[in-house]
Amino acid sequence: MRSLKDLKERVWKCNLALYEQGLVKETFGNVSGLDRESGIFAIKPSGIQYKELQPEDIVLVDLDNNVIEGILNPSSDTKTHIVLYKAFPKINGVAHTHSTFATAWAQAKLPIPCLGTTHADFIQGDIPCTNDLTKVQINSDYEIETGNKIIERLNSVSYSDVKMILVAGHAPFTWGLDPEEALKNTIILEEIAKLAYLTIKINPLVNSLSDDLLNKHYLRKHGDKAYYGQRKKIKFGEDNV
Amino acid sequence: MRSLKDLKERVWKCNLALYEQGLVKETFGNVSGLDRESGIFAIKPSGIQYKELQPEDIVLVDLDNNVIEGILNPSSDTKTHIVLYKAFPKINGVAHTHSTFATAWAQAKLPIPCLGTTHADFIQGDIPCTNDLTKVQINSDYEIETGNKIIERLNSVSYSDVKMILVAGHAPFTWGLDPEEALKNTIILEEIAKLAYLTIKINPLVNSLSDDLLNKHYLRKHGDKAYYGQRKKIKFGEDNV
Amino acid sequence: MRSLKDLKERVWKCNLALYEQGLVKETFGNVSGLDRESGIFAIKPSGIQYKELQPEDIVLVDLDNNVIEGILNPSSDTKTHIVLYKAFPKINGVAHTHSTFATAWAQAKLPIPCLGTTHADFIQGDIPCTNDLTKVQINSDYEIETGNKIIERLNSVSYSDVKMILVAGHAPFTWGLDPEEALKNTIILEEIAKLAYLTIKINPLVNSLSDDLLNKHYLRKHGDKAYYGQRKKIKFGEDNV
Amino acid sequence: MRSLKDLKERVWKCNLALYEQGLVKETFGNVSGLDRESGIFAIKPSGIQYKELQPEDIVLVDLDNNVIEGILNPSSDTKTHIVLYKAFPKINGVAHTHSTFATAWAQAKLPIPCLGTTHADFIQGDIPCTNDLTKVQINSDYEIETGNKIIERLNSVSYSDVKMILVAGHAPFTWGLDPEEALKNTIILEEIAKLAYLTIKINPLVNSLSDDLLNKHYLRKHGDKAYYGQRKKIKFGEDNV
Repeated sequence: MRSLKDLKERVWKCNLALYEQGLVKETFGNVSGLDRESGIFAIKPSGIQYKELQPEDIVLVDLDNNVIEGILNPSSDTKTHIVLYKAFPKINGVAHTHSTFATAWAQAKLPIPCLGTTHADFIQGDIPCTNDLTKVQINSDYEIETGNKIIERLNSVSYSDVKMILVAGHAPFTWGLDPEEALKNTIILEEIAKLAYLTIKINPLVNSLSDDLLNKHYLRKHGDKAYYGQRKKIKFGEDNV
Repeated sequence: MRSLKDLKERVWKCNLALYEQGLVKETFGNVSGLDRESGIFAIKPSGIQYKELQPEDIVLVDLDNNVIEGILNPSSDTKTHIVLYKAFPKINGVAHTHSTFATAWAQAKLPIPCLGTTHADFIQGDIPCTNDLTKVQINSDYEIETGNKIIERLNSVSYSDVKMILVAGHAPFTWGLDPEEALKNTIILEEIAKLAYLTIKINPLVNSLSDDLLNKHYLRKHGDKAYYGQRKKIKFGEDNV
Repeated sequence: MRSLKDLKERVWKCNLALYEQGLVKETFGNVSGLDRESGIFAIKPSGIQYKELQPEDIVLVDLDNNVIEGILNPSSDTKTHIVLYKAFPKINGVAHTHSTFATAWAQAKLPIPCLGTTHADFIQGDIPCTNDLTKVQINSDYEIETGNKIIERLNSVSYSDVKMILVAGHAPFTWGLDPEEALKNTIILEEIAKLAYLTIKINPLVNSLSDDLLNKHYLRKHGDKAYYGQRKKIKFGEDNV
Repeated sequence: MRSLKDLKERVWKCNLALYEQGLVKETFGNVSGLDRESGIFAIKPSGIQYKELQPEDIVLVDLDNNVIEGILNPSSDTKTHIVLYKAFPKINGVAHTHSTFATAWAQAKLPIPCLGTTHADFIQGDIPCTNDLTKVQINSDYEIETGNKIIERLNSVSYSDVKMILVAGHAPFTWGLDPEEALKNTIILEEIAKLAYLTIKINPLVNSLSDDLLNKHYLRKHGDKAYYGQRKKIKFGEDNV
């Protein structure tokens, strides 16, 4: 078991990676990482510039939204992270950015169709987009309702199969088994979103990938018969810094 | 109170930041910062390459457009800055670039619709675009008329609520409480402009953000009930280098 | 004759170049290089991050798909490389990426028309795109069938004349006399794909390049009467790091 | 008067700048600089990678296309440069790239309309595009005919007023009083081309800039009444490294 200090360090690195990869600007976005055993997660503080962010600035919060450690206010999206941690018991990482292409699809209020194997490698179908929040939802606890909207949109789809979503008019959220996987899914999502954009601009009439190809590529990397990577030799997820 | 030497240093850094962020090329663009008490502002010299710019090159000018200090000619947009400083008594920073996406919207002569919360976080509605200058205005004092066009376009909207504008056929101007905030608004504006471009390309029929969501996001960051960032702990604006 | 150790080193450098040039993200893509004499080729391991890749991680495989040297699993596309090496006896390098614009054309399932001399310098006509794999092909040996699809699409066109192809719904493959040339063709392909995209967006009705101009540019660089470069003085291909 | 060794050094730096600014890839493109007095110009060698280019690799050629100094073949576009040097007696620099957006407009075979003041600052009207070369022209001395096509397209427009042009189906050429100005015009042209592309995508119906605004911006920087920059204090062109 890793200590909370290590967790803060890892979450700090993941947040920096968002910035270094060009997925966030200014103070937008946040990655968090949860230690399930203690029920405490580490998250970026609100409104702090990435280039000034230090490990000690990372805030520790519990799943009842109490700040456990840290002198700064946690991210204003904290309650959305909490909703997801409670609803998805197997995840320990959540990432949120306003990365350019994923956010454009979210603002367009459209799911990202699966147009290629780059997408199929990660999601076995469209990347979903929520409906709009209602006026009531916006004016109640907005961040909690954003989280609820995500859960509602997934519906019967497992959060273990689809780890990326667009919040309509807002931006993407991703999650994973740890903050590193949430980060990786954010990177991949932006790439998929960019490819999908260009593809529909070149050929607006192109069909989504056939189910056969979709399944082939998804199951190369997921499930019992997966053969991509070093699954027999190296534990998945550790490859990410 | 900071000295004018400090002001020149800060304005120099803000100008360099425009270049480092890819918002300007060659000698385009300029940031200025005003010391209200003395009525003297610091501005980039005209036609000097950013990569050669030194703090001592920054020119000091008063609000009657007299050069107070500096051997170089001030930016050719200086009089536009002056018009804004006189019309907006609470601002102490102005920035002007030909950043790619904001300039494309200005050349398209269209306001940027509010299509997402990234935009709503900063402006509670469209980012306005001026009308064209008339032939008379172009041939009189062009830089002064450009400033007047900006004020005319804002009309009854407060310059404290809308700190970004597109000058039709030309490019964006932003302002703020200090040069650092003007710089930040330029960075944000470019991001918003890019997202809006991609969004309308994906879904030309998408509606602007609902008023409820617009207000929710704007008021998270502005006004009495703001809860974004470290407002209780760290003074807004100091986060920017 | 270069040793296999040298070959691993060269292939490692080519793979790093893919990453440094922004043509791949995360663990996508791979370059391989073949030593025809021994029938052994070097290829990137599966699912390893580029920024962690070391020369000793490069796997040696023979043309019957036996791992000859290396503790890691070779790329999951290895069998596709083998199909191409067997079908194209003069090539000793293969590269595969999901580079943005080339992949968008592949996802659009369209060949890249020859719209300019940048393209004509390298390919004397369209850059072809395969048909979709059939359900049977997907569910048999998928990577082998991908290779077969490439060969089928080239048809009567010589693999020495057309060294780039798009696999429909998937991504580009390129090849060359050595891994360095395969790498170079990947870089060029992405550039051509980007230019073609922008061109059809500016002018959807533009015609492909005339045969005269197509031939002029292609034959400046290829064949007996080539006069581009230092062909008389420096061996082609050594210019690439 | 600067020596030819200095000229080679300056031309080398300008060529490197093309690469560092992302305006060329691999071995594409070239900048040359002429010493009018001796009738000798320095130009990049053909097919050499920019990252390997050294000052001593720069080739000296005279206006009759004889290599005066250098062991490498000069650029394959050398004769086009010669045609321009002979036809435009006041220029001493020529630059040619396949920069992304300018080349897209050239492949689209359309002039770049003047849609904003960024453009008007440099060219008082459209950036012209040549017609296609005829079959006869392509099959005669192609590089010479390319140069002739440029001259033909300018027609009655002065080469001192319009220093940028697109060669249809090919790419841009620029020139200037020295290689540094040719380089600067290449940078500016790419920027203008990019802005124009985005502008017509946002608003396909937007009109070109009015003559009044066009003239105002152009004459701010050119002619007797120019007031942009440090014209009274610093010689124009020396600002470029």
